Amino acid sequence: MEQQNPNIKPYVIGLDLGGTNSVFGIVDARGEIKATTAIKTGGYEKVGDYVKASVEALQPVIEQVGGIEKIKAMGIGAPNGNYYNGTIEFAPNLPWAHDGVVPLAKLFSDALGIPVALTNDANAAAIGEMVYGVARGMKNFIVITLGTGVGSGIVVNGQLLYGHDGFAGELGHVTMVRGEEGRACGCGRTGCLECYCSATGVARTARELLSKTNRPSLLREMDPDKITSLDVSIAAGKGDELAKEIYEFTGKMLGEACADFAAFSSPEAFIFFGGMVKAGELIMKPIREAYEAHVLKIFKGKAQFLVSGLDGASAAVLGASAVGWEI
Amino acid sequence: MEQQNPNIKPYVIGLDLGGTNSVFGIVDARGEIKATTAIKTGGYEKVGDYVKASVEALQPVIEQVGGIEKIKAMGIGAPNGNYYNGTIEFAPNLPWAHDGVVPLAKLFSDALGIPVALTNDANAAAIGEMVYGVARGMKNFIVITLGTGVGSGIVVNGQLLYGHDGFAGELGHVTMVRGEEGRACGCGRTGCLECYCSATGVARTARELLSKTNRPSLLREMDPDKITSLDVSIAAGKGDELAKEIYEFTGKMLGEACADFAAFSSPEAFIFFGGMVKAGELIMKPIREAYEAHVLKIFKGKAQFLVSGLDGASAAVLGASAVGWEI
Repeated sequence: MEQQNPNIKPYVIGLDLGGTNSVFGIVDARGEIKATTAIKTGGYEKVGDYVKASVEALQPVIEQVGGIEKIKAMGIGAPNGNYYNGTIEFAPNLPWAHDGVVPLAKLFSDALGIPVALTNDANAAAIGEMVYGVARGMKNFIVITLGTGVGSGIVVNGQLLYGHDGFAGELGHVTMVRGEEGRACGCGRTGCLECYCSATGVARTARELLSKTNRPSLLREMDPDKITSLDVSIAAGKGDELAKEIYEFTGKMLGEACADFAAFSSPEAFIFFGGMVKAGELIMKPIREAYEAHVLKIFKGKAQFLVSGLDGASAAVLGASAVGWEI
Repeated sequence: MEQQNPNIKPYVIGLDLGGTNSVFGIVDARGEIKATTAIKTGGYEKVGDYVKASVEALQPVIEQVGGIEKIKAMGIGAPNGNYYNGTIEFAPNLPWAHDGVVPLAKLFSDALGIPVALTNDANAAAIGEMVYGVARGMKNFIVITLGTGVGSGIVVNGQLLYGHDGFAGELGHVTMVRGEEGRACGCGRTGCLECYCSATGVARTARELLSKTNRPSLLREMDPDKITSLDVSIAAGKGDELAKEIYEFTGKMLGEACADFAAFSSPEAFIFFGGMVKAGELIMKPIREAYEAHVLKIFKGKAQFLVSGLDGASAAVLGASAVGWEI
């Protein structure tokens, strides 16, 4: 009878470090989450306290899978994460990292005694898709995350594109509307893809259309300042023409942006990830149509447009854990 | 006394396959061109005749360096070249390849009995810069060729970016002016970078400005249809304000485009190559200024803006030969 090799380390820890919650999962090589725990991200002034609280929360789940000696590594997906340095840099929403460079990978590695790798959340999503999701077997693809912002993880030749400084793949900040009519972006510039195609961008488009026209819409029953992309999606699902037009506008801009991205890295697939993807064909159809209408002839009909294959709730943890397997 | 190892193959053949001329060079590992020859590209109806004429022209220069057994490989830089397949595909300016897929690498390999690799001309320029030029030691950079068209070769993680189908890096065809006011492009679409920033784009800008305004300019002494980017450069060198403005407009658009490219692959350098680069600071200064004004904050001040370090006349042959060393 075969004995399990006591030296095999069958698990990695994945940490999805979000602005509100930090979710930890212990994941096996098949992408099965064996145990999870979580803490509040923002409840700590100093990063040392955050790491200490994390390790305390992790202890029981680590014991549950046989102790730290069963764990190969840890992967972290975090906003403003730099893979090369293992740091989080000037992350506006993290109280312990908003005004400096925090060596989070090293701090966790020292505390747990295992290797730790860190990358930004969209890159973690891309690695997650490659290891566990719809990009298995693909060597050239782009993951676009549509959430509060627009993020991206770009894979070329089977490797994540980090660029010279570790910050490559900021496709939410390519300029889509040049000149003065571009919307102001949180990055301090104007006209970025993110201002139009994030969840907040969709809400902004809704407010613009409602105030500029007198067209009837279910959305007029709401306080304009409280409209979310989900409200627009629900109204569109009920046949609301204005709401449908908002998604068409959003998808069209994403499709045109993807046509430019194809000229850059000619991926075999664009994979969409995040809350807004729940709108389904409402957003995917105009993306595909605008892409095929705008892309250079040699690329026409070649790229697939896919929705993330990872379960929403656990996708970010799986993506982060996949970074650990890559060590 | 050391004897030269008779098994060492110290040379590669580089072929710069242009619309008019095909220039061959025998190149050593230091980038020294030991011998050259050339034929007219277009004088042949069938690719078989083109390859036959090439091999005949090559025989004496191959003998000059000690015979084919001294030659490791051949590299070809060609318009519409596909590295993955070793083919030239639908190249409008090549009579023997304008309406089909020509397996040129295989044809040369069969005729010469050595390995042959082929890529498009801008990719060859990028490899040339990495092996012999200003990009030595760099792992992430973008070469932008400014000639009749705008081409690009993108290097990430020390590898040329070919993408899923071998056609990645068509940065001349990202859309810079969206909607109806975009200029018509040779690719069948509108508003591409190439329509504004190629040599023909510069001439087009000149004609537009001359016809739309009454401003004085040395360029008014010429037949508008015969103005070239070189004429604009010469006029600007003489202090002509309109001509200077044309280069400022061109450089500004290139700088804004590079700001988007940084968001994609975060290169450590942008390297400009081709005839238009002779305009020097006239074009480089507005590129740098527009880049720094438009790039995302995390990338500011990080990228170098360089002019190709390869000698103009031999750069394309060196670039092509470098593709041969990569085999």
